[in-house]
Formats: sequence, C-alpha cells, structure tokens
Amino acid sequence: MSLGTLYILSAPSGAGKTSLVKALVERQPALTVSVSHTTRAPRPGEVDGREYHFINERDFLERVEDGGFLEHAKVFDHFYGTARASVQSDLRADRDVILEIDWQGAQQVRRQMPGCQSIFIVPPSRATLEQRLRTRGQDSDSVIERRMRDAVREISHYTEYDYLVVNDAFERALAELECIVTGNRLRLGAQARRQQALMRDLLA
Amino acid sequence: MSLGTLYILSAPSGAGKTSLVKALVERQPALTVSVSHTTRAPRPGEVDGREYHFINERDFLERVEDGGFLEHAKVFDHFYGTARASVQSDLRADRDVILEIDWQGAQQVRRQMPGCQSIFIVPPSRATLEQRLRTRGQDSDSVIERRMRDAVREISHYTEYDYLVVNDAFERALAELECIVTGNRLRLGAQARRQQALMRDLLA
Repeated sequence: MSLGTLYILSAPSGAGKTSLVKALVERQPALTVSVSHTTRAPRPGEVDGREYHFINERDFLERVEDGGFLEHAKVFDHFYGTARASVQSDLRADRDVILEIDWQGAQQVRRQMPGCQSIFIVPPSRATLEQRLRTRGQDSDSVIERRMRDAVREISHYTEYDYLVVNDAFERALAELECIVTGNRLRLGAQARRQQALMRDLLA
Repeated sequence: MSLGTLYILSAPSGAGKTSLVKALVERQPALTVSVSHTTRAPRPGEVDGREYHFINERDFLERVEDGGFLEHAKVFDHFYGTARASVQSDLRADRDVILEIDWQGAQQVRRQMPGCQSIFIVPPSRATLEQRLRTRGQDSDSVIERRMRDAVREISHYTEYDYLVVNDAFERALAELECIVTGNRLRLGAQARRQQALMRDLLA
C-alpha cells in the first residue's frame, strides 16, 4: 500500500511551473519529480536518467503494451511516457511524486491512480501570460498567437483538477504548493501508519 | 453556497489544542473560531459573545427543537451547543470556521455538514500526556487516572478524523495546521469562484 501521494502538475507554458517545481522539490525532501522516458535522442549535456530515461522506440512500444506507463504521448515524432514501476516504488517508500504533464496525460493518470491529487497553475492575468510567451525570443506574431491558443486550450481544462494555484508572486505560489503537499501528508490514512507506534503507546 | 471550510478540531486535554487554535486564528485572518452557546452562568471576566453566548435553558431547548444547533451536549448540569446560523453565514462569506469540540460533537457535525474537515491533535507520547495532565495542579492520583482514562477514550476516536497532527513541537504543529487550512483554500471549488474574473480573462 502507498504512503506517498502522487501529484499531477499542469499549466500552460508561461505560468512558471518549471521554476516552481524545481524550488518545491528543493524545499521538500520527501518530494521527487518523476523522470520521463522518451524515444528522442539526448541533447548535448543531457544525462540518461536525469533529464529523461532515453529508450528506443521498440522498447518503448513494448512497455506500452505491457502497461508499463501511467501515461504516454507522441509529440511530433517522439514518444514520452511516465513509468508506472518507479512511481509506485517511490509512493510505497513514503515519497511523494510529481508528474509535470499536460491535461491529456493528467486524464490518463487519473484513470489509473484515482488517489492522485492534481494541481493546475495559472498566470495572474492574460497580459502577463502573453508577455511571458513573447519574451522567450524574437518570435513572429503568428508564433505568439499559436502559443496563446495552445495556452488557452490547456487552461480550458482547469476544472478537471483538484487544486488551482495562481502564480501571481513566486514565493507565495511556492508556499501554497508546499502547503498542499504538507497538508496531504497529514491525512489520516498515511499518518495513522506513520504514527502507528505513537498511537499504540497513547492507547495502551 | 459556502466558500469557506468548516473545521472540527478535537484532542484529549493535555494535547495543547487551545494554544494551537489561538495562535492559528492570529496568523490566519480568514479563520474564525465559533463561539458556543451555553446555559451555564458567566464566570467573572467572561463577556457574552466572546467566551460564550449565554442563554437560558428554555431558549436553548427551543433552539434545539428548531434545528438551530449543529451539535450540542449536556455536560454535568449545563448545555453547550454550536449555532448553525452563524457558522453558515461565516462560511458563505468565505471565512473558515473552527469548532473545538469532542468526538461526540464531531460525529453530530459530520452528519449535518459532510463537507467539513476534521483534525485530531495528539501529544507526542503517553509520558508527555500524563505529565501535562499532572502539572495542572496538585491533584490526587485518582484524579490523574480519571483524566488519563478520559484522554485515552477521546484518542480512541482518532480514526474518524480526516487529519492527524502530532503536537511534538508547538511551532511545527502550528505550521502543519496552517498548511491544512491554506491547502484546502486552494481546492478547485472555492478557488474557481474566487478566481472567476481571472479565469474569464485567461480564457477570453
């Protein structure tokens, strides 16, 4: 039985999710980010098992058939997926696991892990979102427009999530994410097992 | 429809609940402690509406018949109860409400307010509990023994609660309670209504 909690974090690009997750795992030692499997080639500097588990397409598809992924998707020409086994062994070891996935992956995971908790992060305004998508480089208006459409499509799924966090100020949003994680660790199920010895002592 | 969350806090005496609740409401402006009604006479220094709403027995029993209490109990010769109307108006105004009640009151409230969240606080060991019950005065062993029996009886209901908090260090337990409250405020239902304007802006 699992003691840890599985978290799904989704957000449109431009919401600041990646920086938040990085800071969150630094502050919460019992929290770990799941490393995805992918069939794309490693980029310079990427280490197998750190950014991704790199795997060839035949092995990937074999794992899919064996139910080895909690979710997977094909993006352009490459597959990406979250391995079931490593998530489950973390949860059993009382570690919480974060999946950074989009709404489609979230739907797949919820079906298989009904105890998961999903969090949607949004930017504080449409203007901020547009600005963040724009300042990523010297992109044409049509590229920005496509990114905005993608972002709005992702945001339109926010009602499927358990929590909604507004990233208006980084430290505040980070503290809110920490509270979600800490609060869930105090839920009776896992706590009663962690505190088994104490409860026996008190009820002796 | 309610935006706030109703919290039940229970603990054996000696767990430090009252100090924790006092500090918690000081730190969380959106959190309020429900003031009970009672038929006992005010003690010197007690102010009507602050420590308790003082009410005569006939009015109390009339309110009971009208369903005016979320829970009530007779302790020795006096009645105590939590008024439904003030709790509900706080919740509708997006304030969270704390009820400091025992497991019997908790059972009554859960039946009527299924969305409530209940928290059980325990001391870090049986020795600490006994010490805290003992240092309250120059009591005889038989008085201490009765208090221990009462405490153990209260603790035996901890599995009925949603959260379990161990008061091993005051600041830590306080931070944990704060996280439970903050985390629940980020749940989709109330957040989606609080952030209605933002979500409309983002999805425009």
